[in-house]
Amino acid sequence: MKHMKSMVLREIRKAEEEPLVMEDLDTPEPSENQILIRITSSGVCRSNLHMIEGDWVQNGVPARLPIIPGHEVIGRVEKVGENVDYFRKGDLAGVQPLWTACGRCEYCLSGRENLCPNKQVTGETLDGGYSEYMLADARYAYRIPAGIDETRDAPLFCPGVTAYRAVKQARLGPAKEVFIFGVGGVGHLAIQFAKLSGARVTAVSTGERHRDLALRVGADDVIDPGRDYSGISKFSRAADRAIVFAPSQAAIDAALKTLKPGGRLVLGVFGGASSIPFVDEIEIVGSVIGTRKDMNEVLRLASTGKVRIEAERYRLDQANEVLLRLKRGQINGRAVLNP
Amino acid sequence: MKHMKSMVLREIRKAEEEPLVMEDLDTPEPSENQILIRITSSGVCRSNLHMIEGDWVQNGVPARLPIIPGHEVIGRVEKVGENVDYFRKGDLAGVQPLWTACGRCEYCLSGRENLCPNKQVTGETLDGGYSEYMLADARYAYRIPAGIDETRDAPLFCPGVTAYRAVKQARLGPAKEVFIFGVGGVGHLAIQFAKLSGARVTAVSTGERHRDLALRVGADDVIDPGRDYSGISKFSRAADRAIVFAPSQAAIDAALKTLKPGGRLVLGVFGGASSIPFVDEIEIVGSVIGTRKDMNEVLRLASTGKVRIEAERYRLDQANEVLLRLKRGQINGRAVLNP
Amino acid sequence: MKHMKSMVLREIRKAEEEPLVMEDLDTPEPSENQILIRITSSGVCRSNLHMIEGDWVQNGVPARLPIIPGHEVIGRVEKVGENVDYFRKGDLAGVQPLWTACGRCEYCLSGRENLCPNKQVTGETLDGGYSEYMLADARYAYRIPAGIDETRDAPLFCPGVTAYRAVKQARLGPAKEVFIFGVGGVGHLAIQFAKLSGARVTAVSTGERHRDLALRVGADDVIDPGRDYSGISKFSRAADRAIVFAPSQAAIDAALKTLKPGGRLVLGVFGGASSIPFVDEIEIVGSVIGTRKDMNEVLRLASTGKVRIEAERYRLDQANEVLLRLKRGQINGRAVLNP
Amino acid sequence: MKHMKSMVLREIRKAEEEPLVMEDLDTPEPSENQILIRITSSGVCRSNLHMIEGDWVQNGVPARLPIIPGHEVIGRVEKVGENVDYFRKGDLAGVQPLWTACGRCEYCLSGRENLCPNKQVTGETLDGGYSEYMLADARYAYRIPAGIDETRDAPLFCPGVTAYRAVKQARLGPAKEVFIFGVGGVGHLAIQFAKLSGARVTAVSTGERHRDLALRVGADDVIDPGRDYSGISKFSRAADRAIVFAPSQAAIDAALKTLKPGGRLVLGVFGGASSIPFVDEIEIVGSVIGTRKDMNEVLRLASTGKVRIEAERYRLDQANEVLLRLKRGQINGRAVLNP
Repeated sequence: MKHMKSMVLREIRKAEEEPLVMEDLDTPEPSENQILIRITSSGVCRSNLHMIEGDWVQNGVPARLPIIPGHEVIGRVEKVGENVDYFRKGDLAGVQPLWTACGRCEYCLSGRENLCPNKQVTGETLDGGYSEYMLADARYAYRIPAGIDETRDAPLFCPGVTAYRAVKQARLGPAKEVFIFGVGGVGHLAIQFAKLSGARVTAVSTGERHRDLALRVGADDVIDPGRDYSGISKFSRAADRAIVFAPSQAAIDAALKTLKPGGRLVLGVFGGASSIPFVDEIEIVGSVIGTRKDMNEVLRLASTGKVRIEAERYRLDQANEVLLRLKRGQINGRAVLNP
Repeated sequence: MKHMKSMVLREIRKAEEEPLVMEDLDTPEPSENQILIRITSSGVCRSNLHMIEGDWVQNGVPARLPIIPGHEVIGRVEKVGENVDYFRKGDLAGVQPLWTACGRCEYCLSGRENLCPNKQVTGETLDGGYSEYMLADARYAYRIPAGIDETRDAPLFCPGVTAYRAVKQARLGPAKEVFIFGVGGVGHLAIQFAKLSGARVTAVSTGERHRDLALRVGADDVIDPGRDYSGISKFSRAADRAIVFAPSQAAIDAALKTLKPGGRLVLGVFGGASSIPFVDEIEIVGSVIGTRKDMNEVLRLASTGKVRIEAERYRLDQANEVLLRLKRGQINGRAVLNP
Repeated sequence: MKHMKSMVLREIRKAEEEPLVMEDLDTPEPSENQILIRITSSGVCRSNLHMIEGDWVQNGVPARLPIIPGHEVIGRVEKVGENVDYFRKGDLAGVQPLWTACGRCEYCLSGRENLCPNKQVTGETLDGGYSEYMLADARYAYRIPAGIDETRDAPLFCPGVTAYRAVKQARLGPAKEVFIFGVGGVGHLAIQFAKLSGARVTAVSTGERHRDLALRVGADDVIDPGRDYSGISKFSRAADRAIVFAPSQAAIDAALKTLKPGGRLVLGVFGGASSIPFVDEIEIVGSVIGTRKDMNEVLRLASTGKVRIEAERYRLDQANEVLLRLKRGQINGRAVLNP
Repeated sequence: MKHMKSMVLREIRKAEEEPLVMEDLDTPEPSENQILIRITSSGVCRSNLHMIEGDWVQNGVPARLPIIPGHEVIGRVEKVGENVDYFRKGDLAGVQPLWTACGRCEYCLSGRENLCPNKQVTGETLDGGYSEYMLADARYAYRIPAGIDETRDAPLFCPGVTAYRAVKQARLGPAKEVFIFGVGGVGHLAIQFAKLSGARVTAVSTGERHRDLALRVGADDVIDPGRDYSGISKFSRAADRAIVFAPSQAAIDAALKTLKPGGRLVLGVFGGASSIPFVDEIEIVGSVIGTRKDMNEVLRLASTGKVRIEAERYRLDQANEVLLRLKRGQINGRAVLNP
């Protein structure tokens, strides 16, 4: 049996305290319907940071300790379990946060498997991608088409699909104007999908670096609203749609104000309490990662070069350092570990 | 020139202070595209009470004083202005809160004229139906089909269309379960439209009288949640849809809790701040009165006996008394003035 | 190993030639994810007749001979294979024409598994329900809720779900008028689902028996169009929606004429060439049986008594006789075999 | 009173017979709600040719003789009638085929005014744009935003809006593949709108000139199917959507074959009889010119340079010559008259 190096979370700790420990573990064996993947790139997500620091303990996340975090993964199929005919050894495969779902509930049956109450979440309910190897459910893993960089593009599997589904939920089109709040790992991809949908895109974010990134990936305009979002006031009722990825209640409230009557707000983040503008018939909806259908569409678009991941690369043993940089706002675009 | 008796609001006052004064006025002359209507029934709406007591002065409602309130009206066409060929003298006609709209803005052009920023609102920006006569814009007034009681059914034109549009916004169907919060003038009609749509309907309201009314108009179940809505807790994640007409933040918060993931909440009332459940992809949308298309559909359904208005009848000079009874929760269903 | 009696098709033959032979076979063993069902009711469908008489041989149906026909089935779970936790021995289970699907193609992933190119079809690609026992894929079989008659209600699983999906595809609602062409095994159920959706329903069919059945299950009107559908001409542009189950090109052409501009036609049958009315922006769409989601919704509605199957009962060994009666138009509603 | 030169159709004639006669007429006076426009560009449409040659006489088109054809027009407002506040003298204005509609029928009230049974059609039921001046209904005429060439861009008002609505009806998006049949006046604009919607676009048309035009305006691929469309056979089930502007039954039949199950076909032309593929749940819908909402969106997109009209320019007195060239397939893109 082979060994593998993994960055393991043994107990909840702050990013400053080097929460992850490099360990030498047995590589797991794929059961029926499973594959074993040798990982080539593995993204680091802000929600990994939340889990690791204990922000979601009261929601039962992580579901167990120790656990290997990481839920956006590309790698090579090393071994296939029984009943697997979708993959062969050597294929490139990807894994997203939706590790598996029940296939039977009303959500699975209606194309909304991302809401399945019986789902498993990669790196939260079972081991994920901060590792040299990991298991995947072959029915919920993805073939990687040509044109995708196996050492860089893991973020397609979380911010990619998250941005894509949120943009779809926004119901854009050539005659629509959308404001996108937040130009980070998810936002810089949402700008690209919104442009692909034909919409006029205004990015809302603070700082020169975000401004540059937004324009580089195609935003038509960038607004710096200031830390308190007061700068948004002159864009009242300017947008048909708004999408919020900036983790801030002020961003959500600002987004509601930018919407025209009849507009639609897509939330890509948790909010606190917002006043819902009843008289304008504004629609509000959350958007949570994505389904296999969403993911397949992301891969198709990425393989034709229509989406560009901006990512910094790190070694697996730098995972603690990356978490800290992420916490301090020092990552540009997305960070990827290369085991 | 004829005279008419009207209940006029000269200045903002509380319902206890007899805010309306009976006056003897000249009947107005219909301009181009207008008709003069001799009123046979005129509903009293809770929003009339809000306007009269000054709750909406900061929003510019009423737009002028003195004004004749009342925005749900049936009557006979007494006189037609130039260019009117849709009505003739003697026709039964109805008027809803949307007195007119601009016909040109993006809302008017997309079947959402209820959001027209240039609209006139009956009894708020110009004189309404607490009167023997009133003017209407013939392009936004309605022919009344057979089967509708001209002395009772004026409420079709506000709670009727409000309930109907809210139910449409809820996207019901035979396999859906909807919770309707509030069994008053609007709610008792929404229950009927929701049943017509095939849904299973649970009414949520307090008190024996509301319970009886809900069951009489077809609710499958009635829940008494208690004043603080604590009784709703055992119905967590039970509904596909929720519609709120109960004017209470607690009702909105309770409605959000009753929704399954992927559910949809329709607000028929103003709310304060609510925490929006992002991870469940719940949709929230306001619903504001209705369009001419909505109104025509309400009239078609009412004319075939599929909707029953529960209304108490009063004389025009009892308008102050009705407002007070409404404020004290002493009206069952809806109140109608018969001039 | 147990034995079972089955009505087997050994070679394509006309209904007049007693195509099915009663045989004594070994009951099959459920593999992984499969269950063995002891059948209590099994519907006889017109498409069984088509297959048996060889109408679809050029389309590869049946996929093999000998085969046991029958694709609408209710029974008791007799035995469960490995990996099955959705059913236990003794449970009531149902099977519809979609015996299984691949779970991976773009149709399976978007809630349209009825279009899966890799699907298996009960009684066409593998053995079906004209038998005492049959195998089912546990992931695509259904638990039967209370309120359903296991000895009569098998037709829920083909005409039930076919009618339901077609009605959903018609996008009905309380303000819609729908014409339903054909009042047979499917049509009499579609009338019920359309009424549940709030629509005004006009049934179009010939003969006193169909008229009675249509009215008994709730049609608002029945039109006898004559054999050549000439009687439909005075209903030109009368309907918002039309649904065709009558297996006749004349019915489809007549349905197109009854539609208002902007209307929608749902085809529940094969047609020949029709002239598509481009200038009226009429939508035309086929509807093919249904998905697991559709089927679950049918079961929920049936369990609350909202749908009534009209079925004649026969013994299993009468299958040839039933096929002949069906061919001659002598079955009222649906025919069911009770093994 | 001023005079104007107009190309008048006095009787139905073939294009070879110089059907239009240049006449010197009184300029008409704008009535209430009307404007008089001095025309700067006026497009020549294949449907003008059909009307002039008598192909539609049996449908009552033209509604009267003599008539001035032409239904895609840009010009300067010369005079405004009473009640017009949307335009002032000197404004640039545009007119599309929908000269006016009733504003009251179920189509006008639901955002489908293009289906209004009481509409007036420019150049068919009243005088159009082959002239120095024409009248327009100010409520159905359009302000021209900056960025549009008043001497060239008249085709925005017929092929522009026709292409745009058809593309909207096709429900495209970044993950969709669409086949567009026909690369003429309408098709070359549809390619652009489809690309704006993010779709992968395959143009289907015969000949080098069409190939060049399709690629120049952004098509990802061009297929030359041959005159009989036999060349399409290897693209069976390749497209999510198809749009047909090529006036040929073979094109429609070919389009149906290119569609995947669950696909959608938009017809932009009359067809004869087609066999509708019921078992694949393919949707078919016609698309007829467009509404004011559609037209406003076209103008917004054109004003930002996102749509390019390819047009040849002619003098007003060359109208007969242009019709003949159009009939002979000698116009590239669109032809425009400059009075």
